[in-house]
Amino acid sequence: MLPKLNVVPFVSVDSMMKLVHAVGVERFLVELAGFIEADFKRWESFDKTPRVASHSAEGVIELMPTSDGEVYGFKYVNGHPKNTKEGRQTVTAFGVLADVGTGYPVLLTEMTILTALRTASTSALAAKYLAPKGARTMAIIGNGAQSEFQALAFKALLGVDRLRLHDIDASASRRCAGNLTGFGFDVTICDTVEDVVLGADIVTTVTADKQNATILTDNMVGPGIHINAVGGDCPGKTELHADILRRSGIFVEYPPQTRIEGEIQQLPADYPVTELWQVMTGAAEGRANNRQITLFDSVGFAIEDFSALRYVREQLARTGLYEELDLLADPDEPRDLFGMLLRAQQPAAA
Amino acid sequence: MLPKLNVVPFVSVDSMMKLVHAVGVERFLVELAGFIEADFKRWESFDKTPRVASHSAEGVIELMPTSDGEVYGFKYVNGHPKNTKEGRQTVTAFGVLADVGTGYPVLLTEMTILTALRTASTSALAAKYLAPKGARTMAIIGNGAQSEFQALAFKALLGVDRLRLHDIDASASRRCAGNLTGFGFDVTICDTVEDVVLGADIVTTVTADKQNATILTDNMVGPGIHINAVGGDCPGKTELHADILRRSGIFVEYPPQTRIEGEIQQLPADYPVTELWQVMTGAAEGRANNRQITLFDSVGFAIEDFSALRYVREQLARTGLYEELDLLADPDEPRDLFGMLLRAQQPAAA
Repeated sequence: MLPKLNVVPFVSVDSMMKLVHAVGVERFLVELAGFIEADFKRWESFDKTPRVASHSAEGVIELMPTSDGEVYGFKYVNGHPKNTKEGRQTVTAFGVLADVGTGYPVLLTEMTILTALRTASTSALAAKYLAPKGARTMAIIGNGAQSEFQALAFKALLGVDRLRLHDIDASASRRCAGNLTGFGFDVTICDTVEDVVLGADIVTTVTADKQNATILTDNMVGPGIHINAVGGDCPGKTELHADILRRSGIFVEYPPQTRIEGEIQQLPADYPVTELWQVMTGAAEGRANNRQITLFDSVGFAIEDFSALRYVREQLARTGLYEELDLLADPDEPRDLFGMLLRAQQPAAA
Repeated sequence: MLPKLNVVPFVSVDSMMKLVHAVGVERFLVELAGFIEADFKRWESFDKTPRVASHSAEGVIELMPTSDGEVYGFKYVNGHPKNTKEGRQTVTAFGVLADVGTGYPVLLTEMTILTALRTASTSALAAKYLAPKGARTMAIIGNGAQSEFQALAFKALLGVDRLRLHDIDASASRRCAGNLTGFGFDVTICDTVEDVVLGADIVTTVTADKQNATILTDNMVGPGIHINAVGGDCPGKTELHADILRRSGIFVEYPPQTRIEGEIQQLPADYPVTELWQVMTGAAEGRANNRQITLFDSVGFAIEDFSALRYVREQLARTGLYEELDLLADPDEPRDLFGMLLRAQQPAAA
């Protein structure tokens, strides 16, 4: 008899927060980046289905599936910019990992926090390959829900310890700075974008408005910096002036998706870009020289979620930070589903 | 302050079984058919995304999303024919309903049992429109996990009370008959397909092998019967000889899907079929006369799952048969996700 075939491990929001603290947030970000890097290096072994989006006037609901032939994963994620006015999150997510051989789910987990972590790990991982050597100063434009995760990932993976913060809402910058107290950053809050980029080796843009904004213009960007563009991630939502793109070496996750959702939606469909996974395997060049502007045009890809699901699953047995969810009907005799239902009403005599 | 934004109601397998018994299985099937019928009658208001399939040597994992513009639903379902050898189910499923306006999930539920119920309700609903008047006798070929649900739905919706059962494994027929004891059927077990169809007003085929089988051949099918073909539901899996199809009026759920997955994969791509929803609205004719063979070529469509999710959600408040799942991160201040994570480690002073 197989034990507990009906049970799927479930990581709640509470368990995820406990897990992050049990591992330590910086170590979590580093180890997660390791899983992402390992999966990017075997990029071609993945089934890269396009995400399935259901659009409405208020926002979008998406399913992001992928598989490496042995494990299947998908993320449910919404994007509703007006949600914050009602006290809700703009983006919430949950995810599932399943065994390809049986089709049985093996993990259900919250992914709102996990997505913030994987986005930050991916950004810092890209910068490890692309940012100027010895980068210590990062400007963060947009100091909302993603900002602290980005800061900590860059500290943990690259040693960035000087932050320059700017947000059109100064209270967001103050909250970000406050939340990062005790993590070893030297933090400067700046009133303008012109000011915040001064002296920065890395500029992270992570604003939230759904519009073609021009957070950064060409004259603000000096030679040799790395731009980590996180906020532009759907059609009609960009953050950088197109002139910056034309001066930069552009690195992306998955071109068919990034051309629709990323900063490069502003460029012709055949504009040359480099796939990040090829930089990691050595098949493509990363930063060309110390004057090149490198741009990671991040939109978030299903493989990153897959890596994050794999990572969380690996922590379950050691930490015990999960519940057992009675999700799968499991009759003693597989063909007798109705019999199981009957017996739930009238327990059979032993 | 909004209460419990983090919580999503969860219906476990155990709760689903209790819910079915609390409502009563026949009443559940009838009420569920009512929800399906209501949704079929507003067919054109649905976003009909194709299902997203991930195929492997062992089986398939699918995501089936749909939306009516106010509510979004999807089902995760696998199909792994070899699973039963290891004591697992061939098909397991779970589903989610979400609010289109906020993107927040409002229900997570097991759907293995629920899918069996919705498939049976859909079959009986189609037969209500297509079967000969006064039909009381149904043959069921294939007496596995679906068979009792089909029998009870046809009893509850049409008054079918005489069953003729056949399976290549006679023990399956005996188990089906045993499970249906006390439900008011007159049951006959038959050794051959030729025998089982004798005198049947309705023939339900619901076998499980993934192959182009010929469960029914042309000479077994007399005039005036209704065929409820449930088992042929993926490429390469059919149950009826093509000659039967050519003699029948063919009714389907969603032609683009049925032409790939249903019995009509054996026919040319432009072979005329009638959409079931149009029969329900009166836009198309159902059964033409009492000698016509009608065929419901059922493959299962996302809108049926959507109806089932809606139905289950409506039972929650009254029955209390659900748990509260801590699935969605809900910081007091929506932009302060990291602050919530920090406070989970060190509770703030009041």
